[in-house]
Amino acid sequence: MKAHLLTIGDELLIGQTTNTNATWLGEALSRIGVHVERSVTVGDDADAITRELDRSYEEAQLVITTGGLGPTHDDVTKSIVSEYFDAPLETDDELLERVRQYYERRGREMPPEVADLATVPRGFEKLENKVGTAVGLWYAESGDDGERLLAVLPGVPDEMRSIYDNGVEPRLSERADLQDLVHKTLLTTGVPESSLQQKIGDLSDWLDGELKLAYLPSTSGVRLRLTAMGRDRDVAERRIEALEEELRDRIGKYIFGTGKDTLEGVVGDLLREHEWTVATAESATGGLIGHRLTSIAGSSDYFVGGVISYANEVKINTLGVSASTLKAHGAVSQPVAEEMAAGAATKLGATIGISTSGIAGPGGGTEEKPVGTLCVGFARREDGKVVDLDSVRLQLTNDRVLNKELFATSALEMIRRKILW
Amino acid sequence: MKAHLLTIGDELLIGQTTNTNATWLGEALSRIGVHVERSVTVGDDADAITRELDRSYEEAQLVITTGGLGPTHDDVTKSIVSEYFDAPLETDDELLERVRQYYERRGREMPPEVADLATVPRGFEKLENKVGTAVGLWYAESGDDGERLLAVLPGVPDEMRSIYDNGVEPRLSERADLQDLVHKTLLTTGVPESSLQQKIGDLSDWLDGELKLAYLPSTSGVRLRLTAMGRDRDVAERRIEALEEELRDRIGKYIFGTGKDTLEGVVGDLLREHEWTVATAESATGGLIGHRLTSIAGSSDYFVGGVISYANEVKINTLGVSASTLKAHGAVSQPVAEEMAAGAATKLGATIGISTSGIAGPGGGTEEKPVGTLCVGFARREDGKVVDLDSVRLQLTNDRVLNKELFATSALEMIRRKILW
Repeated sequence: MKAHLLTIGDELLIGQTTNTNATWLGEALSRIGVHVERSVTVGDDADAITRELDRSYEEAQLVITTGGLGPTHDDVTKSIVSEYFDAPLETDDELLERVRQYYERRGREMPPEVADLATVPRGFEKLENKVGTAVGLWYAESGDDGERLLAVLPGVPDEMRSIYDNGVEPRLSERADLQDLVHKTLLTTGVPESSLQQKIGDLSDWLDGELKLAYLPSTSGVRLRLTAMGRDRDVAERRIEALEEELRDRIGKYIFGTGKDTLEGVVGDLLREHEWTVATAESATGGLIGHRLTSIAGSSDYFVGGVISYANEVKINTLGVSASTLKAHGAVSQPVAEEMAAGAATKLGATIGISTSGIAGPGGGTEEKPVGTLCVGFARREDGKVVDLDSVRLQLTNDRVLNKELFATSALEMIRRKILW
Repeated sequence: MKAHLLTIGDELLIGQTTNTNATWLGEALSRIGVHVERSVTVGDDADAITRELDRSYEEAQLVITTGGLGPTHDDVTKSIVSEYFDAPLETDDELLERVRQYYERRGREMPPEVADLATVPRGFEKLENKVGTAVGLWYAESGDDGERLLAVLPGVPDEMRSIYDNGVEPRLSERADLQDLVHKTLLTTGVPESSLQQKIGDLSDWLDGELKLAYLPSTSGVRLRLTAMGRDRDVAERRIEALEEELRDRIGKYIFGTGKDTLEGVVGDLLREHEWTVATAESATGGLIGHRLTSIAGSSDYFVGGVISYANEVKINTLGVSASTLKAHGAVSQPVAEEMAAGAATKLGATIGISTSGIAGPGGGTEEKPVGTLCVGFARREDGKVVDLDSVRLQLTNDRVLNKELFATSALEMIRRKILW
């Protein structure tokens, strides 16, 4: 079944409100195998709404609208639907009674214009709204090329969700022509999109209209979204499994998690599992590694603390980096990053230390160390002695804000690799 | 000028990603007086993209697309545009060189397929991408009924925003047929929406269809958006000015900036102006204050560094908090917050120290100190001696992620108040 969404409201177009209704409906419909093909937003404008309703009703088997169902002058959806389907608005006594009671409970008289809330276009089913006063509408029409369905929902998210859950989804689930759609997302990091493409690009041979693989870049790395669809859910699941297996064979070591996992959460679990504690020494990231680690509830199990050593004096006095190393190699260097990591672990009393020193930009770049240069240092202690001291140097972007995120991701990934690789 | 947005990506339709690009573009375009009439989302499907591109290009003067510009097989937008406008893709040497350098800096060979990133449809202008490798495109066509404009942007939000700001908005601002719409945003912090409402709610008498005031809450505080529209720009500007003056009279001390100012940027400017340096001592914020301060380019002028003292041992050993204060009052207390702030300033050698100790949640709350409790400490030194030691206790929300942001905002605001109030 193919669906179009039509979300209505000026506030969505001017960016005052983010269109979370479209997100929520997209997820809910995909979950039951409805294929959302198109999502359109227009303002509270009768001509625009009519035009888009017409297009969607022609092209899709299911159209869901949200918005424009309240009692105010810019709520025009119901009268448009009534006109489009030549279905006169009729007052529903049960609804009118509900609206009356709603005002009575609040000790106020019912304003005359809200009587419109109690009308239903002839031939439409009403969908009960357990949360507010605007009623949802349902229309099913049989034609030569199968059934056409229309659901008209309010724009207030709570009301929309409640009516969808109680009124729309049960009606859709009765229909037979739902596709089974299986999604899985594999999260990679420390490997650029183009190099993934080299390693797995030939898998496009496996793909067809019913099996898809999408690359979604983020500051934590490239997410790989696997989608399979088909009438038979088992077949779809087996195709996803086979593709995942092949991907893990080829690039498994870059995959840190699936779905809604976060790198800081995965690293935290690994640290807890190994009974390792961590201390940070952050220069270029300015506290972001600490912030990300502590965004996970329970991180005090493994995160001891850190030093943000922005000034060189802090590197020397608080972390114990030697002035001569700083002078010989400069603050942005692998030797300094290593001394920072060792200093953090030792001074704060943690199993491992992780450090960043780099040039986030926009200033500070040189020929030898351009903007985007990052050195990550790692130190691990056993019985009070540093037994593993390591570092990497990376070259990232020209954007300060993005660099800080990528720098922190690189440091977290270094911990993951040190534990797993 | 009327605009349509065309956002492309399966992930938007299935609800995996919320369409924040449409929100952001809607806001940015409205701000300069472009009327966004329609916003359409389709998947990574060539037929659907072509169909919607055709519709929008027929109906609007400006079309902006996002998504589908990367190097992988599902990135089809550029070839669709090339075909639709009969504009063959030509390799741009400068772009090719940039992509090559991008790989060179990372010490890797350029995969052959990324050469596609360096192509531009004939007759199109390229829009420089300072953040990534996918280039934006601009097309302007004069016809009988005026000019048609097309901007093709990547879907990665950072890249999209950067190209819009640097390439698209300047080109739009040159055009004359923008509506007269004056926006101004006043940024408040440290005052809840309900208490603002009490202080300025009666100003609704000033408002009408052509003068609007909206409250927009954020983790940095409540933004007040003033909008005036009308035929006469001067009149609109004077109305905005009068409203702003009244607002500043009543709540001026809560207003830390306007427009795209950030609290960390404003605080940074104040510190630089007063030639004060700052050191942080973060417990509940886990590094976020440092992260926010260092997100501002040039912050090394005033930010010395900090200590993330998650474990009590770090508070004692690195910051010099006394074990007896910890025992008497607990880690989340004003006395400990003050000792942390004084310790950070003294040990790291800064003019002021700012600290946070609190319970972000979800665990760790007690009757006396429930989740959301925050203590902020402040210390200022002169000639090596602490001359101002202060603290506040606040009660914020139940959500860990939100709390960390609000905690950091409260600490930054404490610096601003100490300087200005």
